[in-house]
Amino acid sequence: MAEEKPYLTGRTYLFKLPKGKDLLESLADFCHDNQVKCGVVSVVGCVANATIGYYDQAKKKYDKKIINTPLELLNLTGNISIQDNRPMVHAHVTLADNEYNLVGGHLLPGTKIHVCEAYVQEIVGEPKVRRMDKVTKLALWN
Amino acid sequence: MAEEKPYLTGRTYLFKLPKGKDLLESLADFCHDNQVKCGVVSVVGCVANATIGYYDQAKKKYDKKIINTPLELLNLTGNISIQDNRPMVHAHVTLADNEYNLVGGHLLPGTKIHVCEAYVQEIVGEPKVRRMDKVTKLALWN
Amino acid sequence: MAEEKPYLTGRTYLFKLPKGKDLLESLADFCHDNQVKCGVVSVVGCVANATIGYYDQAKKKYDKKIINTPLELLNLTGNISIQDNRPMVHAHVTLADNEYNLVGGHLLPGTKIHVCEAYVQEIVGEPKVRRMDKVTKLALWN
Repeated sequence: MAEEKPYLTGRTYLFKLPKGKDLLESLADFCHDNQVKCGVVSVVGCVANATIGYYDQAKKKYDKKIINTPLELLNLTGNISIQDNRPMVHAHVTLADNEYNLVGGHLLPGTKIHVCEAYVQEIVGEPKVRRMDKVTKLALWN
Repeated sequence: MAEEKPYLTGRTYLFKLPKGKDLLESLADFCHDNQVKCGVVSVVGCVANATIGYYDQAKKKYDKKIINTPLELLNLTGNISIQDNRPMVHAHVTLADNEYNLVGGHLLPGTKIHVCEAYVQEIVGEPKVRRMDKVTKLALWN
Repeated sequence: MAEEKPYLTGRTYLFKLPKGKDLLESLADFCHDNQVKCGVVSVVGCVANATIGYYDQAKKKYDKKIINTPLELLNLTGNISIQDNRPMVHAHVTLADNEYNLVGGHLLPGTKIHVCEAYVQEIVGEPKVRRMDKVTKLALWN
């Protein structure tokens, strides 16, 4: 692989997300309000429900699944970059139900925070920018 | 969301956890011995067994599950903050059994390390402090 | 636990992995080409297939599973250290199929990148070195 230009370590945040609000939107709002344009995020906690997606690589679109039960959020892993001039959070989640059965996917709006603890690490440099990729029909970095 | 005060990046650790010891207790002891009061942690490896919890949002208490088989530790994600004047590790785990079936939850004492490699990132600033939250009956950050 | 010597935070990378290439090999090549000798890595995205392992703690060897369907990569968590004088990536993955069933294990060669976004955090200090451990028959840090 070609050499990549490194980023510098920026600000670090550890905080509780607002109970009852949407998980994905809260993370994006946090990045917008604090002007975090590039970085990574992780979250653990529990959610009241979840809306997740599976990207169909052949059809080039997301399938969507709604889970209307309380779930343990085992892990949210994601990154922060710019899309349409605004911080965008791309995150995947792993969830467990009350029988410890796991489910997970691409995090979509429609996942309500119960108790969620977030870690955001800003990185400083040329922010990544998402633009529509014709091959996958996803908004990707160049 | 309101603006959050950022932390600075502190010390970083990458190390092997002690074989045969308790996973959660070893992480908390590590933080205590090295005076890591605030930060994040991740671990990959395998464990001899596991004890995990599911927080019942309606009953406001943890259900507990014990798994008495060796498991791959796909992922431990967690944070470090202060509870009762001591570093406390809040961690969730995702595990796989020998048929690649997944299980996971809130990590409880009673999970024995076989081979575990940990990453701890200290963050510096006002450490988060956990105090009993009346609404959820969980020890949360203010 | 004994006190551990901390590392310093090094270079940080956020980048897209090359479509169609092998996930584990691409990460190791990236570390080699950029001379990242020690650190941590996380990835989210989707893969065209996967090859994963389960370490059998009694038999002291890996079982291997090949999954020949497109999968969401919910999470790759791993570390970077030196083995045989070259950066080696030890990574575990959690994956979801098109029915949101989860599977995961130790990442092996034979996992094809579709769209994968990687975060690499270099840490600076004495790099960890893997050597064969007689007890587990795994290449571990001293």
